[in-house]
Amino acid sequence: MKIALLGYGTVGRGVDEIISTRVSEVEVARILELPDRLSDPRMTASIDDILNDDSIELVVECMGGLEPARTYIMGALEAGKHVVTSNKAVVAANFARFAATAASTGAGLYIEASVGGGIPWIASIEKVRRIDEVTSFSGIMNGTTNYIVDAMRHAGEDFDAVLARAQELGYAERDPSADIDGVDVLNKTIITASVAFDVACEKNLPTSGIRNLRASDLELFAGHGRTVKLLGRGVCADGRYAAAVEPVAVAADSLEANVPSNFNLVTLDATTVGELKFYGQGAGSLPTGNAIVQDVLDCARGLRRPVYDFSRPLAYDPSLLRGDYVLRTEARLGDAEPFGTGAVLVRDLTAEGARALLDEALAADPTTFMAALPASPSSFSPDSAQEG
Amino acid sequence: MKIALLGYGTVGRGVDEIISTRVSEVEVARILELPDRLSDPRMTASIDDILNDDSIELVVECMGGLEPARTYIMGALEAGKHVVTSNKAVVAANFARFAATAASTGAGLYIEASVGGGIPWIASIEKVRRIDEVTSFSGIMNGTTNYIVDAMRHAGEDFDAVLARAQELGYAERDPSADIDGVDVLNKTIITASVAFDVACEKNLPTSGIRNLRASDLELFAGHGRTVKLLGRGVCADGRYAAAVEPVAVAADSLEANVPSNFNLVTLDATTVGELKFYGQGAGSLPTGNAIVQDVLDCARGLRRPVYDFSRPLAYDPSLLRGDYVLRTEARLGDAEPFGTGAVLVRDLTAEGARALLDEALAADPTTFMAALPASPSSFSPDSAQEG
Repeated sequence: MKIALLGYGTVGRGVDEIISTRVSEVEVARILELPDRLSDPRMTASIDDILNDDSIELVVECMGGLEPARTYIMGALEAGKHVVTSNKAVVAANFARFAATAASTGAGLYIEASVGGGIPWIASIEKVRRIDEVTSFSGIMNGTTNYIVDAMRHAGEDFDAVLARAQELGYAERDPSADIDGVDVLNKTIITASVAFDVACEKNLPTSGIRNLRASDLELFAGHGRTVKLLGRGVCADGRYAAAVEPVAVAADSLEANVPSNFNLVTLDATTVGELKFYGQGAGSLPTGNAIVQDVLDCARGLRRPVYDFSRPLAYDPSLLRGDYVLRTEARLGDAEPFGTGAVLVRDLTAEGARALLDEALAADPTTFMAALPASPSSFSPDSAQEG
Repeated sequence: MKIALLGYGTVGRGVDEIISTRVSEVEVARILELPDRLSDPRMTASIDDILNDDSIELVVECMGGLEPARTYIMGALEAGKHVVTSNKAVVAANFARFAATAASTGAGLYIEASVGGGIPWIASIEKVRRIDEVTSFSGIMNGTTNYIVDAMRHAGEDFDAVLARAQELGYAERDPSADIDGVDVLNKTIITASVAFDVACEKNLPTSGIRNLRASDLELFAGHGRTVKLLGRGVCADGRYAAAVEPVAVAADSLEANVPSNFNLVTLDATTVGELKFYGQGAGSLPTGNAIVQDVLDCARGLRRPVYDFSRPLAYDPSLLRGDYVLRTEARLGDAEPFGTGAVLVRDLTAEGARALLDEALAADPTTFMAALPASPSSFSPDSAQEG
């Protein structure tokens, strides 16, 4: 099968390397690059050279960003070409339109690499859904922020110092806001909720990040047997669903708490299979390239043709996600109980209500940090085991 | 597709329940049961009623044990019927013969449910191997022993008390040796190594269990920032492979250390995708039934036909797995350094050498407990991260 790459950055080069060294049945025939970077005979600066080439059956979009990625993906799907993409921003913003266009032309839309890098997350959700309903998901979906929190926790350094080092080393973007404000996780949460719940997910989900996290916040939570991770979460019940992105104070002996460095860990809960967790490299040239090539192989071998019709009549209901929240703030909040020095506990908020409370607190104290405080799961429950 | 179940115990009933309530394209047409238990019109006590019925395309073997399971599986494969099985003992003992027979008649052999219950482990390894080589695997593959170790660690109880309670509650067999002596994990390790490394795995792997584990041993390791888990492990390099089953003193902040109750966690490392971990229910009616039904669906939809030819010219070389070991023993061993009260450290043994040393120590002190002590991974490494 002849394919084209749109973009030849970190991920595009990884895809090219994996295919050329390991996959004989696929050929990278064309590569879309900027006019001043055409260093390879396969490269062109014209998308039309690719979209008008009938020998190219599949297009891998790994440019990132909303435009021109959106236009090129739509063009490929309208031309009946299969699309594989690692671009979470463009998928999260256009998932239903892409899916409808793919369905109308018979093209396949493959998005494994857009969430969780090399982790087989999207295909696993689709497989689980052949039998089960997915009732909830949650996960560490951003390697940069996990790296930052992990470094702060283990080295005791403060946020700005760790972020600066991560930027120097190239682990974090010069403008880090997509990572540290939760936007990247928001996109991945929208995509995951769409696939897991079969719904065109609400885009305006409650979202907060770790920009204001301090080493002293981690110490405060450590004193309660917890640490903080930035999680994307979703839940579906009784014809309704909700999702949110926020720091969560997880139990220190949970798997989530112990995810090191820039790894990801994503969890789903489903009717008969129960709880499944998947862990791996959430980014990087080869892991993300691997996820793309797996999608290309599924397509080339006719093994999997994801069909997203988002036909389930699910209502978005933020009240499904509720719990207690801790805010470290100098703002004075009603209904707040003390929670260690300088922090308060506010009980039984929805994720939306918590986000509104955070805005209120930030207006008074721009350094405010907030994390959800889920009920502590007893780490050992003798009654929960089964034979084997 | 019409299928037959061989066996109607916990797993067989789970498969029947999932298919009847959730999978309309598959029909459980016949069930093999004991003559005095024929409570359903689909049931028969004669395997010939199933093997001679051309309308039955697939047989699910969930009887357990070596015979008559082996004979029935061979009969089904010889008759060109696809076989799905959850029976690790019979697969570990006969994998190459089953695979060769399946290849000769064109039948499919599906074994997802034989390792890791509901965790999509076998299919994930096969998928990874489409692109990568698997260089190593390791995992908590037995829920009963993880339950016991977890209970000992968190409740401070000793082995016999926890085992007795687990037996009362039906979580552990009346004869627990297959679990606590590592035999169940050995079977799963043989199957995993065969699939991961594409080799008819050596059956006589170094194997030790947790029968002699004491709460005080866990305290000793806790003092070194570790806890004990029973792991199956394998490694493949330079045309050679090795595998072993033994208790391992894992870092207390590793994911393995924090796997609760009877859950499983299995890890693979591969060329481009890197490290992947999979977590879920390793046993139980519905999770294992789910894994079986996933295999049935793959077969019914023509999506996946595992082909195991074990053609790689890999030499079994136990020297590939080596490291330090701790023995809590009253036996006097040469080349041993003190490791806390009553325990010694012996450096740089192969897993086979360690098993031989354990035998020597057990002859002098039948209460000896041994665990591998892998080099402590630094839990935070600022250089290991990647962007994203």
